[in-house]
Amino acid sequence: MPKKWLFPDDRFFDPDPLQKKTALEIYERIRALPIVSPHGHVDANLFADPAAGFGDPAEMLVLPDHYVFRVFYSQGLDLADFGIPLRSDSSETVETDHRKIWRLFCENFHLLVGTASYNWLGHEFKFVFGIDEIPDRENADRLYDELVEKLASPEFRPRALMDRFNIETICTTDGAADSLSAHQAIRAGGWTDRVRPTFRPDSVMALRSAGFRLEIERLSNASGIEITTFDDFRAALVRRREFFKTMGAVSTDHGVYKPAPKRLPKRKLEAIFARAMNGGADKSDEKKFCGHMLMEFAEMSLKDGFVMQLHPGVFRNHNRQIFDRFGADKGCDIPVRTEFTRNLRPLLNEFGNHPNFKLVLFTLDETVYSRELAPLAGHYPALRLGPPWWFNDSWNGINRFFDSVVETAGLYNLSGFIDDTRAFPSIPARHDVFRRALSNWLAKMVVRSFFGMEDAHGLARLLAYDQPKAIYGL
Amino acid sequence: MPKKWLFPDDRFFDPDPLQKKTALEIYERIRALPIVSPHGHVDANLFADPAAGFGDPAEMLVLPDHYVFRVFYSQGLDLADFGIPLRSDSSETVETDHRKIWRLFCENFHLLVGTASYNWLGHEFKFVFGIDEIPDRENADRLYDELVEKLASPEFRPRALMDRFNIETICTTDGAADSLSAHQAIRAGGWTDRVRPTFRPDSVMALRSAGFRLEIERLSNASGIEITTFDDFRAALVRRREFFKTMGAVSTDHGVYKPAPKRLPKRKLEAIFARAMNGGADKSDEKKFCGHMLMEFAEMSLKDGFVMQLHPGVFRNHNRQIFDRFGADKGCDIPVRTEFTRNLRPLLNEFGNHPNFKLVLFTLDETVYSRELAPLAGHYPALRLGPPWWFNDSWNGINRFFDSVVETAGLYNLSGFIDDTRAFPSIPARHDVFRRALSNWLAKMVVRSFFGMEDAHGLARLLAYDQPKAIYGL
Amino acid sequence: MPKKWLFPDDRFFDPDPLQKKTALEIYERIRALPIVSPHGHVDANLFADPAAGFGDPAEMLVLPDHYVFRVFYSQGLDLADFGIPLRSDSSETVETDHRKIWRLFCENFHLLVGTASYNWLGHEFKFVFGIDEIPDRENADRLYDELVEKLASPEFRPRALMDRFNIETICTTDGAADSLSAHQAIRAGGWTDRVRPTFRPDSVMALRSAGFRLEIERLSNASGIEITTFDDFRAALVRRREFFKTMGAVSTDHGVYKPAPKRLPKRKLEAIFARAMNGGADKSDEKKFCGHMLMEFAEMSLKDGFVMQLHPGVFRNHNRQIFDRFGADKGCDIPVRTEFTRNLRPLLNEFGNHPNFKLVLFTLDETVYSRELAPLAGHYPALRLGPPWWFNDSWNGINRFFDSVVETAGLYNLSGFIDDTRAFPSIPARHDVFRRALSNWLAKMVVRSFFGMEDAHGLARLLAYDQPKAIYGL
Repeated sequence: MPKKWLFPDDRFFDPDPLQKKTALEIYERIRALPIVSPHGHVDANLFADPAAGFGDPAEMLVLPDHYVFRVFYSQGLDLADFGIPLRSDSSETVETDHRKIWRLFCENFHLLVGTASYNWLGHEFKFVFGIDEIPDRENADRLYDELVEKLASPEFRPRALMDRFNIETICTTDGAADSLSAHQAIRAGGWTDRVRPTFRPDSVMALRSAGFRLEIERLSNASGIEITTFDDFRAALVRRREFFKTMGAVSTDHGVYKPAPKRLPKRKLEAIFARAMNGGADKSDEKKFCGHMLMEFAEMSLKDGFVMQLHPGVFRNHNRQIFDRFGADKGCDIPVRTEFTRNLRPLLNEFGNHPNFKLVLFTLDETVYSRELAPLAGHYPALRLGPPWWFNDSWNGINRFFDSVVETAGLYNLSGFIDDTRAFPSIPARHDVFRRALSNWLAKMVVRSFFGMEDAHGLARLLAYDQPKAIYGL
Repeated sequence: MPKKWLFPDDRFFDPDPLQKKTALEIYERIRALPIVSPHGHVDANLFADPAAGFGDPAEMLVLPDHYVFRVFYSQGLDLADFGIPLRSDSSETVETDHRKIWRLFCENFHLLVGTASYNWLGHEFKFVFGIDEIPDRENADRLYDELVEKLASPEFRPRALMDRFNIETICTTDGAADSLSAHQAIRAGGWTDRVRPTFRPDSVMALRSAGFRLEIERLSNASGIEITTFDDFRAALVRRREFFKTMGAVSTDHGVYKPAPKRLPKRKLEAIFARAMNGGADKSDEKKFCGHMLMEFAEMSLKDGFVMQLHPGVFRNHNRQIFDRFGADKGCDIPVRTEFTRNLRPLLNEFGNHPNFKLVLFTLDETVYSRELAPLAGHYPALRLGPPWWFNDSWNGINRFFDSVVETAGLYNLSGFIDDTRAFPSIPARHDVFRRALSNWLAKMVVRSFFGMEDAHGLARLLAYDQPKAIYGL
Repeated sequence: MPKKWLFPDDRFFDPDPLQKKTALEIYERIRALPIVSPHGHVDANLFADPAAGFGDPAEMLVLPDHYVFRVFYSQGLDLADFGIPLRSDSSETVETDHRKIWRLFCENFHLLVGTASYNWLGHEFKFVFGIDEIPDRENADRLYDELVEKLASPEFRPRALMDRFNIETICTTDGAADSLSAHQAIRAGGWTDRVRPTFRPDSVMALRSAGFRLEIERLSNASGIEITTFDDFRAALVRRREFFKTMGAVSTDHGVYKPAPKRLPKRKLEAIFARAMNGGADKSDEKKFCGHMLMEFAEMSLKDGFVMQLHPGVFRNHNRQIFDRFGADKGCDIPVRTEFTRNLRPLLNEFGNHPNFKLVLFTLDETVYSRELAPLAGHYPALRLGPPWWFNDSWNGINRFFDSVVETAGLYNLSGFIDDTRAFPSIPARHDVFRRALSNWLAKMVVRSFFGMEDAHGLARLLAYDQPKAIYGL
């Protein structure tokens, strides 16, 4: 007999009866609040065409989710057997029978036990698709058929789920030169303005990348500004931000290795940009240029009001063999130690006191929670702390975050929850875990008399809903 | 209706009934022990004049407490509106109506919820001033009037509170050239010898500071030794320590950026000192000089028996704009990563095995608790670990400390509690939080059978009272 | 009246009644599983002679255990008074009356309260030797006599305890040139093949050590290969590994300061090796050589199937005074910050995807658990995370480990428990603490509905027994 998902209504809460009762009481008032998702990686095309769907079960739950297939890979399974697409120039082949891929997924599903993904998938199976069984070797085919049938029905189309999930706003992530055609289609169709783009110009900061000049050309074309100098480049970015704003964008996002903003003198800047345009920029050029651009982006935000988001400290594509076969985003991005106190100072000194600027900070290095981020957020008016990100967006991760930052930063300097996912059906699961963790943490404080229930109810709503809306102006 | 402070007698303890009962039993025996406060920043002038008072409510609770107003600043309020004094050369003005400041404080008091300061202030309102209400917009004026009345009565003078708080000893922090006139007045008046100075020579180590030569001149005058060479300088410091000793001092304190003691050859030392006297010392000079001086101070401690306290790892005045307007200690000091294993080695190798030397270490970098500090304290006889400091002097901070260090360092290598505050009325609150956290942690161990109640009672008293007395020789 | 060891059957578990019941239920099924100990430092000579014993109580419990006497040292007691052997060239004397040493140990035993050693010793007293009393000044002599009597009886001989402890396999740690004579004797005597050597070639990587050439000579003799070039050196190591394999070895171990494998070009490598053979290698040579050798050892493992264990990040012999008097392993090894993401990349890129290679990683730097090790283990198929090591092999240490790594790495990428001790009688205590901590943690997950009891039972067995057997091929 297959095992069934547990998911009782009091799941995840600490077991002390009084605390659990308190947590449930707090949770009851926030569980059904609309979802605000100001940062993530869902594909806007899902919503552009009213008839668009998720594909088959493997296409929906396995192929796009590197959180999941990395665990199978770590246990000796080959990504090719999961049908992970190869790089375009590859002569290898991968599994194309999605039912086979699904079977492999189900057979190995137990390897995920204890991970955050296991929870999210459980929520999706049980509450999104109404499937009580935990996948295994025996039920793989049956689950596949059941999911295929459901996914074919109108109520499982992305637009329908958007309503069912009660998503008030969802922001995508888009390149600086992106046409935002999907966003245009969504708006043109008059369906909703709840899907918004986000300006993420990382690719035009990768001076050493083989594709840099192509990126600049794309930026030129998109902005209508011919880019030959740094000033052109900057003007093109500003122009694009204006366009993004007309499409509903409220923020930018920056995935830098080291969060070290620092202005360069104009002369050096032009020289580096010229070298980059000639394909001759080196590592030091790129580093300095990225540092400078963070200052520019903050200055642009001051003018156009875009919230600036920083996601630093990841060694991307750590496993060259996987990168060479499959490309980026295959579960081999590994965090590195990150320093904020000294690194962020130039930006915070120039912009951190300004009422019109908002910087939302993320980290994968939990050691900075109590040492650097909470003291910084407890001082600079422009700074808000994003929630636990990526690997730390988990039950224990969220608990560690609250335990480490609140006593120093307070609760009003936190951004509230941001899901940052590319797996659309997992969004309600992620928000539910956060709301439960938040309720549990507040209950912990209440039963210890740090504050009362009236405060707890207000703070729960603040971090689950009001605060992200307010910070991002949604 | 205003909200009321909760503060039940079993506050903060974990909710499991058996553990809470155990914690209360442990706490009952230590709650009323006298307070020993071997390190802090209370102004000795509060006690010099028997008639001295705390001023009005804003002067007592808002203006001096950067732990508090930094949170308001982080939420977009201006420090000028809180009447925070400007730098002397400023042409700006700040709010001078203290009732208005108080109203602003009360209106925004809810922003502090969840912070350590919220707890301490609650304790002060409820137990020091007998005010049950949590400040808000409505009760601001009423609370102001009530506090003004109370603060005017003799029982709220500092000397009276010293008795009511059951403070057995309190140590202040004083510059190397300080006349200790307040201390002299206290002793001359025959009131008590419970107020003691602490020797903190940081300002004469700041070689690059504009005021360095003035500091040296003050040191010359205070010591009666004309300082032209390093040897003079050292002799003057020794002379001053002798004087501090006659005034009751038992320890020194050192706030260095990096805890990296290392001896310099005599020739280099003299050269650096000469450059400093001529206003030509650079960053590297200062760094080396501070490193050397830590060795000298340890050597002096070996002779005069002063406990050496080290508070490293803070980036002071991180926000230049605030520093330029208001000066130092305005809530913008941010911790940095700190290394002890390699850095402290020269000092520990030269002095760490000596029975006549005691070094009490503090850190704002919790990552070193289990990795470096506990193993070091579990080995070197001269080393004792100070309690969680500053931002980490909080309920969760204290819990993390015990959980991280005890299994490696044992309990006898901890210094016990040290409040390190400049907010005199918060002293009982801080000691009470520590005593509760200690009791709760010991109860956690007892109900898990790591040791029994007899041990727990002894260890509670050890860390709440006996150990700081013994280490500092009070 | 002396205090008695508590050690109830539900010891250490969290007190919530439901969780404790669940933990006990999980623990009951794994408590009696055989012990597999794939890495440690027990002396094989204990088992070579059937009549070998542990000596007197001081020889068994005090003299070899630097976890214990370091705590006494930290409180001002002299190691000489505990009879710790001096370096061979010393003119000092140490206490030789073992009864006196035992008394000192008992008088100061309370200083250990709260440490991991206190627990382990309690388990040994109560369950290995049937002694209910906690040592103190009063019972010291009585306990000494009782232990002497017991240790004289056949049932307390190492071989007898091996059976009573239900140890299925125990691996020792042996130098590259070791004759493994004790292992030969054990096998020749036909008693058992449950004692296996481990290949630890650290001493032949210490290029700057005074004894380096002697070590090479020993390696030459042991391998029968005359070593003049690096190729000879490498061939000798391969030859020795072959011999270790015939004696039952399944793994190698490497105690490097920095886990930074990186290949050197052949020419540089030969030059460095030549300098080392002439006694002229410098710090940089040694560092590069060690980095290169880690790559070589991984390559050898790929061929001979030895599991590669890495124990990095310790500043050995931090206290020069103690090292000069007593030598190595005297409780003054202090951890340092350790970086894995960037450092390990060359090795993981070359070998980390290979199904025939297994790397078990240890660390004393807990900050890398969630940031680096869990993401790495959740991706690379060759990587498994060793359990909390040394100072972190403690109740809270184990809890922090599970809380930090599982949600990212899953449970199948952990190695399960490895005791790493030189104190043979403490082995059951250490495994019992781990099994309890594991059961408690799994119960925590079960009562929060992260997974069910069937999963918990399977995972408990996996990490207590099956997984180390499988990884090490035992």
